[in-house]
Amino acid sequence: MSARQDSYAPLDPGRRVLMGAGPSDMHPRVYQAMGAPLTGHLDPYFIGVMDDIKALLRYAFQTRNDMTLAISATGSAGMETCVCNLVEPGDEVLICVGGVFGDRMAQMVERHGGRLIRLESEPGQPFTPEQLRKALTGCQPKLVGLVHAETSTGVLQPLEEIIAVIHEHDALVLVDTVASLGGTPVKVDEWCIDVCYTGSQKCLSAPPGLAPLTFNDRALEAIASRKTPVDSWYLDLSLINAYWDGDRVYHHTAPVSLFYALREALVLIHEEGLEDGHLRHALNYEAFRAGIDAMGLAFYVDPPHRAPTINPVLAPEGIDEAGVRRRLLEEYGLELGGGLGALKGKAWRVGLMGQSSQRDHVMLCLGALEQALLAEGHKAAGSGVAAASAVYAG
Amino acid sequence: MSARQDSYAPLDPGRRVLMGAGPSDMHPRVYQAMGAPLTGHLDPYFIGVMDDIKALLRYAFQTRNDMTLAISATGSAGMETCVCNLVEPGDEVLICVGGVFGDRMAQMVERHGGRLIRLESEPGQPFTPEQLRKALTGCQPKLVGLVHAETSTGVLQPLEEIIAVIHEHDALVLVDTVASLGGTPVKVDEWCIDVCYTGSQKCLSAPPGLAPLTFNDRALEAIASRKTPVDSWYLDLSLINAYWDGDRVYHHTAPVSLFYALREALVLIHEEGLEDGHLRHALNYEAFRAGIDAMGLAFYVDPPHRAPTINPVLAPEGIDEAGVRRRLLEEYGLELGGGLGALKGKAWRVGLMGQSSQRDHVMLCLGALEQALLAEGHKAAGSGVAAASAVYAG
Repeated sequence: MSARQDSYAPLDPGRRVLMGAGPSDMHPRVYQAMGAPLTGHLDPYFIGVMDDIKALLRYAFQTRNDMTLAISATGSAGMETCVCNLVEPGDEVLICVGGVFGDRMAQMVERHGGRLIRLESEPGQPFTPEQLRKALTGCQPKLVGLVHAETSTGVLQPLEEIIAVIHEHDALVLVDTVASLGGTPVKVDEWCIDVCYTGSQKCLSAPPGLAPLTFNDRALEAIASRKTPVDSWYLDLSLINAYWDGDRVYHHTAPVSLFYALREALVLIHEEGLEDGHLRHALNYEAFRAGIDAMGLAFYVDPPHRAPTINPVLAPEGIDEAGVRRRLLEEYGLELGGGLGALKGKAWRVGLMGQSSQRDHVMLCLGALEQALLAEGHKAAGSGVAAASAVYAG
Repeated sequence: MSARQDSYAPLDPGRRVLMGAGPSDMHPRVYQAMGAPLTGHLDPYFIGVMDDIKALLRYAFQTRNDMTLAISATGSAGMETCVCNLVEPGDEVLICVGGVFGDRMAQMVERHGGRLIRLESEPGQPFTPEQLRKALTGCQPKLVGLVHAETSTGVLQPLEEIIAVIHEHDALVLVDTVASLGGTPVKVDEWCIDVCYTGSQKCLSAPPGLAPLTFNDRALEAIASRKTPVDSWYLDLSLINAYWDGDRVYHHTAPVSLFYALREALVLIHEEGLEDGHLRHALNYEAFRAGIDAMGLAFYVDPPHRAPTINPVLAPEGIDEAGVRRRLLEEYGLELGGGLGALKGKAWRVGLMGQSSQRDHVMLCLGALEQALLAEGHKAAGSGVAAASAVYAG
């Protein structure tokens, strides 16, 4: 019954450069905000923090939706909040599965009693409007779920045209923007996305633990006309909104420190401006791409379909991908993500998200990867660092 | 689509003295730990942090249970994790409802398809073994749920005898220790509690956002013999445990900073020693009680049934309880909780939990309350400060 050991060393993780699938690096101001003195979760000052977060999230999502807030749990809980509030037992739901996160959404639909229609993409390819048109012939789903940037594959799904097809069939559109919001355009209102969620720890560069989301009026009507209660109490959006909205009815004790940090991360995005932030992500991706190409390494996804935020780079034949990651972590404090799903053991997932989308990160990553591969016996075709540098030089 | 305003003030909540229903004050070392550099959620260092948390939680829960971990969401999500993993549609479940949190547990049972048997206590009274014995005649619940310290009423439920009665009827025992663990004895193994959960932000004095829990083998067998999948993906304990356990299978991105802070808060509890911590909570409660009695104010609960951690104090006739709280917050930065449920508008809930169970907190609270009541036209019968001081003087 005693703790494992008699005394515990002071916490000291050392420094990291986070270029995996998230968390991303955080700005010093976000660390500072997280350390601000706790208030109660109904304190007038804290209510103001929540109001700021709502306003700033509306900016990030590019929406006027009143129902815009952050769930007090991680991104996958945001996904489940959307699914469990919209799906009732027996509802037909179409999920577009292009990787691990589409598959996760499909699993959630089944757990919450939905009748799942599963549409799979070609490996490494986005869905086409034609695929959706065909899939929607002969079924009448209440909801269609899509992943914008599939973190497991790095595929960026074009949304506008496909959403128009889905709306022709009168279904609600749910979009996962966990690996895209803040890093590449997401225009909830202009693109007519009915329901959208993200995570705090990727392109928003806040600490992990919160899941921002937004619902439009059409989606709220679908909730209001449910015949059964939402099966989860913690993720019941009507109860959560009564705390975020005017009435401030106690639901749960908000993670105060994470809210502080999310507010600050969103203020930083607001200060930079969404468009400038997207340009920064695009530039750093371009430099990174040039470097990987010059080194003779291969991306998993073809150029037109790549997310600028996260990309699997295939490990060369005979190279131990986990060994390279271990070396990068030990020698440089540099974290890359391992392959997930079909790419497990075969690729490094390199994140260029939020505060991790920086010139110094790109240059370190390319240089360190070059040296780590050399140490494992693989010589790069050319200098990644020089090629990336040329991109920055314009 | 622009954010609400053009620029945002720097975050500056000012100082607070937190003596409400939680969050409680945090030790400076916990703030410091929370600000440590982020690592990835599968980083070897972070895995070590998770292992430390498991070991330290076993100490806090006084258990050898292997399945001991923290859910990445707040205390109510811990409650729902226990309910949704143990309750299958049609299962008979008895919930002892003595306040808002027992009622919440009952609601969750119904949402997850359980056949609820609801047992209500006398107002302000704990349940007796006889009540349970009677309630268990004529039914055969799979699970009986109890709240140890009901945050809404301040009643402390004696557990040992009542658990024996429940086990005679072969049901699993689920105990909510959100407002008790760390502040008053909770002996999971010795008292034969099958399932137990708490929140991070009360007597553990970590930031809100995590829900530690522990399941014994009997409870795990109940999960293993389920006929249907758990309806929540995010709260599915088998998936969560695959991340916490040897295999480290990715489930969700752990709230890294909150885990750092929880580890440090648990190290502090380990350093003080659970028993010394309980004595500290008992002494500060005694001093507070003496002060409230001297002032001629009334507790909601009779002395033998009071939790030493949180207690509603009834507002005198004609006194605006919210006005007094507002005054304390504005003049002293002191937060008391408002009444919840049946006590809404009628009482202050005063928390003496974790780092908020301190001599200086007690003295400030009594002195400030005395002055705030005076300002509202109510003169205390005697000096609360002097009476508390006499208790500390021994």
